[in-house]
Amino acid sequence: MARQGTEAAETILGFYEPIREELSRVGESVASVVSSAPREMREPLAHAIVGSGKRVRPAITILASRLRSTASESPIQMGAAIELLHLATLIHDDTVDNADVRRGRATLSSIWGPEVAILVGDYLFASSATSVCETGSIRVIRRFVAQTITELATGELDERMAAYDAAQTRQQYLERIYNKTASLFTTAAECGAVLSGAPEEEVQRLKAYGLNLGMAFQVVDDILDYEGSAQEVGKPVGADLAQGVLTLPALLLIERHPEGNPVVDLCRTRDADAHLERALGMVRGSGIIAEAYEVADEYRRNAVDALAGFPDSRYRRALLEIADYVVGRTK
Amino acid sequence: MARQGTEAAETILGFYEPIREELSRVGESVASVVSSAPREMREPLAHAIVGSGKRVRPAITILASRLRSTASESPIQMGAAIELLHLATLIHDDTVDNADVRRGRATLSSIWGPEVAILVGDYLFASSATSVCETGSIRVIRRFVAQTITELATGELDERMAAYDAAQTRQQYLERIYNKTASLFTTAAECGAVLSGAPEEEVQRLKAYGLNLGMAFQVVDDILDYEGSAQEVGKPVGADLAQGVLTLPALLLIERHPEGNPVVDLCRTRDADAHLERALGMVRGSGIIAEAYEVADEYRRNAVDALAGFPDSRYRRALLEIADYVVGRTK
Repeated sequence: MARQGTEAAETILGFYEPIREELSRVGESVASVVSSAPREMREPLAHAIVGSGKRVRPAITILASRLRSTASESPIQMGAAIELLHLATLIHDDTVDNADVRRGRATLSSIWGPEVAILVGDYLFASSATSVCETGSIRVIRRFVAQTITELATGELDERMAAYDAAQTRQQYLERIYNKTASLFTTAAECGAVLSGAPEEEVQRLKAYGLNLGMAFQVVDDILDYEGSAQEVGKPVGADLAQGVLTLPALLLIERHPEGNPVVDLCRTRDADAHLERALGMVRGSGIIAEAYEVADEYRRNAVDALAGFPDSRYRRALLEIADYVVGRTK
Repeated sequence: MARQGTEAAETILGFYEPIREELSRVGESVASVVSSAPREMREPLAHAIVGSGKRVRPAITILASRLRSTASESPIQMGAAIELLHLATLIHDDTVDNADVRRGRATLSSIWGPEVAILVGDYLFASSATSVCETGSIRVIRRFVAQTITELATGELDERMAAYDAAQTRQQYLERIYNKTASLFTTAAECGAVLSGAPEEEVQRLKAYGLNLGMAFQVVDDILDYEGSAQEVGKPVGADLAQGVLTLPALLLIERHPEGNPVVDLCRTRDADAHLERALGMVRGSGIIAEAYEVADEYRRNAVDALAGFPDSRYRRALLEIADYVVGRTK
């Protein structure tokens, strides 16, 4: 599955309002990576950053940090690190997937070639690590550079290795989307809390919020690959399955119809032309989409529950709104 | 130029003797990355690590740390981080260069494809960052993940961007090899010193040692691409120039013969078949190789001079031997 491929670049959402200034400073920090980069890298970097979505992850970091304390510098540095790492993984994923389009725009690798894409991705990895080091918190640095980057690479590789494997389990799918998506959401929330000086018990609750939100986010992203039109989603519909990537809807279809299943046929023959349309049709014509949304919604509820102990504030309300938005979005 | 492509895997060199046990523990730490990796990644990772040369960089880290103190844990973690980062960059470089062979062995990207190579490289980046975090030293972590990784990516991209540019200067070449090679040598020596608790003045001298050694190392590597046979060097001779990568010998040839120069012709036409042999012949049939070795030797002398203030010890002698070895090696 394309990682979070469906965020629109333009939308300004209400839940950003309480942290508008901090998010704008995250944006400046990300932009400064372009202006301070070696000359040859600026054009592809600028291309990568312009199309960089709605900044949900850094918003989580900053909101998590504001639950407890007033605005400070380190959550902004952390937010920039999170966003830069996200961008780096998008670029390498698109290169690995030979994807031409993301969010309706040509990918970096399709314009400048895979070689430049590898190196620009590496540069963004390095920039994200630089930014997280600025926080000065060894716990946060460790969580970010050691754990999260490892999990991201593991998730993407696992997706490739599991392609066309009709025998994979739902549990394998869930572990994979934890690695490739929810890990970074977890880090975003956890590190915001750590940097605000929150007690450990609060850190753990925000960590649970991030993890469950990230799982919901990716399940919905995977549903949208079956549901939307190419225009809405910003990439071809059925793109995951066409590449042999089995996400929740495909796995549910296999569970329901183990025999004569077009997903199984597609995995066996690796012939998307022959089987993709039938698979998409069967998924849409069943209750599978609704069942998959129920899985996402359970994660959403867990995320919301994790915030129960925090007193009401506009920051907490914004985090709750993000949870609703993630499951309710259509693109 | 291929980065440090000419190290043989088997040689055990005398200067490793005083730190044999520590280096063996670095090797175990690197090997444990394979055994703890996700199942799908183990085979390509093992392939990358088996052919991983002589561990000059971690040896520098450990020797630098031993100038001042007795053996401790953190230089071993640092040495493993340095080696893992080196391996990660080799894999991405080979992928970017579409190289089929390194050190006489098939490259990871030629066996498993560029997609797996990108992700295994990312995983090694992450593993190196994990290892450096174990040192617990924020100065060392920052130098490593922020500065060095950025410089490595910059150097490799700059090499690509400057390909076939016959107007580039020697200064540009030197900056590039600092970024792509000497930066990591600098970090290796500097961080060894920092972790041993050396005073700042000693740290700076070891940093100068590493920088100059790294410059000498890469200049010699680039010379060997003109000098050796394919069997000796472990890759085709003239490979740099064939890809339009101008290293010191080519730049010296342009300086000497601005007109009717086969390197200039090769850059203009991008036709290696037509011009490569003549260029190699002109370089070999002139005093250019000797002149390039003189450049390398000046860096070697600077490296040696940087060690002048340290009392004699077997660790200091080993660092001096490494400097001689780097300039004197034939492969």
